[in-house]
Amino acid sequence: MAIRLAELAVRYGCELRGDPDLEVSSVASLADAGSGSITFLTDSGYKKYLADTAATAVILDAAAADDCKAACLVTDNPYAVYASIAAELYPLPEPRPGIHPRALIGDGARVPESCEIAAGVVIGRKVQLGERVIIGPNCVVGDETTVGAETRLMANVSIYHGVHIGERCIVHSGTVIGADGFGIARSSQGWLKVPQVGGVRIGDDVELGATTTIDRGAIGDTIIGNGVKLDNRVHIGHNVVIGEHTVMAAQCGISGSTRIGARCVFAGQTGLAGHLHIADDVILLGRSSVTKSISKAGTYSSILPVEEVSHWRKLAARFKRLESMAAKIKLLEQRLNSSKDRKS
Amino acid sequence: MAIRLAELAVRYGCELRGDPDLEVSSVASLADAGSGSITFLTDSGYKKYLADTAATAVILDAAAADDCKAACLVTDNPYAVYASIAAELYPLPEPRPGIHPRALIGDGARVPESCEIAAGVVIGRKVQLGERVIIGPNCVVGDETTVGAETRLMANVSIYHGVHIGERCIVHSGTVIGADGFGIARSSQGWLKVPQVGGVRIGDDVELGATTTIDRGAIGDTIIGNGVKLDNRVHIGHNVVIGEHTVMAAQCGISGSTRIGARCVFAGQTGLAGHLHIADDVILLGRSSVTKSISKAGTYSSILPVEEVSHWRKLAARFKRLESMAAKIKLLEQRLNSSKDRKS
Amino acid sequence: MAIRLAELAVRYGCELRGDPDLEVSSVASLADAGSGSITFLTDSGYKKYLADTAATAVILDAAAADDCKAACLVTDNPYAVYASIAAELYPLPEPRPGIHPRALIGDGARVPESCEIAAGVVIGRKVQLGERVIIGPNCVVGDETTVGAETRLMANVSIYHGVHIGERCIVHSGTVIGADGFGIARSSQGWLKVPQVGGVRIGDDVELGATTTIDRGAIGDTIIGNGVKLDNRVHIGHNVVIGEHTVMAAQCGISGSTRIGARCVFAGQTGLAGHLHIADDVILLGRSSVTKSISKAGTYSSILPVEEVSHWRKLAARFKRLESMAAKIKLLEQRLNSSKDRKS
Repeated sequence: MAIRLAELAVRYGCELRGDPDLEVSSVASLADAGSGSITFLTDSGYKKYLADTAATAVILDAAAADDCKAACLVTDNPYAVYASIAAELYPLPEPRPGIHPRALIGDGARVPESCEIAAGVVIGRKVQLGERVIIGPNCVVGDETTVGAETRLMANVSIYHGVHIGERCIVHSGTVIGADGFGIARSSQGWLKVPQVGGVRIGDDVELGATTTIDRGAIGDTIIGNGVKLDNRVHIGHNVVIGEHTVMAAQCGISGSTRIGARCVFAGQTGLAGHLHIADDVILLGRSSVTKSISKAGTYSSILPVEEVSHWRKLAARFKRLESMAAKIKLLEQRLNSSKDRKS
Repeated sequence: MAIRLAELAVRYGCELRGDPDLEVSSVASLADAGSGSITFLTDSGYKKYLADTAATAVILDAAAADDCKAACLVTDNPYAVYASIAAELYPLPEPRPGIHPRALIGDGARVPESCEIAAGVVIGRKVQLGERVIIGPNCVVGDETTVGAETRLMANVSIYHGVHIGERCIVHSGTVIGADGFGIARSSQGWLKVPQVGGVRIGDDVELGATTTIDRGAIGDTIIGNGVKLDNRVHIGHNVVIGEHTVMAAQCGISGSTRIGARCVFAGQTGLAGHLHIADDVILLGRSSVTKSISKAGTYSSILPVEEVSHWRKLAARFKRLESMAAKIKLLEQRLNSSKDRKS
Repeated sequence: MAIRLAELAVRYGCELRGDPDLEVSSVASLADAGSGSITFLTDSGYKKYLADTAATAVILDAAAADDCKAACLVTDNPYAVYASIAAELYPLPEPRPGIHPRALIGDGARVPESCEIAAGVVIGRKVQLGERVIIGPNCVVGDETTVGAETRLMANVSIYHGVHIGERCIVHSGTVIGADGFGIARSSQGWLKVPQVGGVRIGDDVELGATTTIDRGAIGDTIIGNGVKLDNRVHIGHNVVIGEHTVMAAQCGISGSTRIGARCVFAGQTGLAGHLHIADDVILLGRSSVTKSISKAGTYSSILPVEEVSHWRKLAARFKRLESMAAKIKLLEQRLNSSKDRKS
């Protein structure tokens, strides 16, 4: 597919600098772009490629446009316009309607004719699929689960019973939704399993990365709001609630019953303790450790970055002696005070 | 199913306050409970809901019982009693005996008639299953593996060859047992793979969360004791030994050959180096980093929680200058000493 | 299989001390070895077992050989020699050629007769497999992906479309290669998905542990060099480039577009921010946090290990007051200076 720049400029409200009849049919990076491709500039570190890019067009903001020899689509939000144009050029594959003969559909399940159900899929009893749902090879969908229209599960996804997934969601391979939360009770005979009788409710337009896990609620549901995006390997404990449009990068872990606001952004490997409340619009830098609720929007961090190991070891040893360092300071203060007293 | 409170009080040794003929048939949270449901109170933060709960009965301790208008089951361990009653009301599904025509059973495998083998399952040669084992859809069980009676594998579980799993275990989706440990030897031609010729032995009553991985031993077995409970995404390296009734929350990682005692509790995202010995009854708070053996029961921590980012950056910068801070203190001590000397 | 020590000594360039006609047919640990087994010593902590080992032969270095009663293979690199001998005694299983009737092969796919394709496998259109490839049960391989000769995928591996995997690779269960990278663009309507149109290129002799994830590139490919070994649960973000013979232990996470040199060694739970450059031969100790590029080979760390919790809490509180501690030191300096001034 090739699209005229004039069309793109109108559709995405960009100022067009250059020939409106030029067409683009692929995306590329600034450095590697060739004729017929469109690219974008958001990071000033890549500005050096602007003069020599062979791209047909570049999406960028007004401040950068003057340095660009190629045609420009000028906008305040180049990355979002790029995302939209790339989605036009590389649309998600359409469902190929039909149920593969090697798929199994449970009794009472509703599978519209517009759905694509791949080989090896096992769909449970009374499952309800919306229109144009795609279920990839070897996925398993538990009894009485519902999957909204146009949602797509990639290969080898496991959904337990009683899960609700909204519309236009994407679930990547290896992801598990609705496994039992980690509910155990100490007893004289060891740990007793606490039955996890809640479910999972996932909103619309949610994307879940590969091998992410979202546990079912202990009592009541685990809830993922509309527009939430979770990267790979994220762990969501039972009865967690995640507000709309919150995003988390890879390997984050959210302990049970924590409630997270809307539009939060958590960088990778962040960990939250259980039963916390996190306000809307909280940004956590990479590998943040959160042990208390956060009531105020803002950016938070707790990372100590690497040092060369011999230096680090000295710092770590000092850290372990912070108590004695504080004691020494106190003693110095006392000595100075008493020497002053003597003098006065 | 509905159960009379009188019956529950007798069975679990609780004091019953209220009408013994009341029946409960579901569980609920204190706040959301309705008639016919039973709930529990363990966390004083939820005590405020006690006065108004619509639950038919509440499981709680004597100290809290006076404030409760509903019928009470009074016990020293409300959560364990709740777990037991919930397990009665929501029993694990019984196996539906039979081998699905789309399952494959290897030569010489023993699959009792009481087992449920779902579609898409591939069971290797000489696999031995106990009575009433459930193998969920699309699971793969390697050659010569044994699975004890009443153990259940949820969908898409991968078990390698030569693994032994005990009785009444639960293994959640996406979990992998018996993959090769990370054994590599540096050589002039790059890294050589060290064959992992040991196996995995898992005791009885073990529960493994979703996408957890337990590697096979390099030489000899990786061993998981009876009653161990591992949450989602836990990594157990080769030749690790975990004592009975130890539990680990999500995303913990245990490096190879570390031996962990009985009844330990590791909170989420904890990491242990290899070749350590951890005593019985060690508690690690969330995200603990353990680089040395721990010979004494107790609670340990190493977490620095988040601060607002501008404050954190100052702290991190100070941390990096701890050496010079210590040097300044030393200098102050010297100056004070010498000024004293002069005076004396 | 039994092999004469004389043969092994010649093949691996070891000095043989003992009867050249002795044969070994299995490996064992020093402590548990029996007759007919070969073992190794690399860690001086295990030297105590040397006197009493019942092993037929021990691979060790010259310094340790004098204490050994068993036959010795003396070499500078005992672990590498052990790896090679163990690989002889325990060879990887040969492919059992054939396509299982319950596997599906897409249109235009090339599957040589020497390949083993297990039950439940779904291979996409135009997939190209090399000779003697093994695809384990219930794996899914996306359209137009290529897999080099003698590579083996264990059970339940998910490979997306457009992925290239080299020769002699091993991919463990639950691993996902080529899922979409975490590309999202903020817009007034929430987050827009940025199409991930690149692929993944994996070199030869790469091993990937269980449930590891390697995302496809946003534009251009994610690249894993020859001889790279990744343990379980590693996350590789989009457009990451990993140099040859770099290894990472379990649960490492590499954010998008970071470039890592050759022969690096990252211990477990290490995390790297995005868009960094890491030099060749960088060693990161366990759980390192890397937020800036590292331009110099060497060893780096950022871990603070656990303390008993009451001591830790004091340290953490002191840490949070480092600013005021610095201020106190400054004040002491000023006071001391001014008292000196007064005196002079």
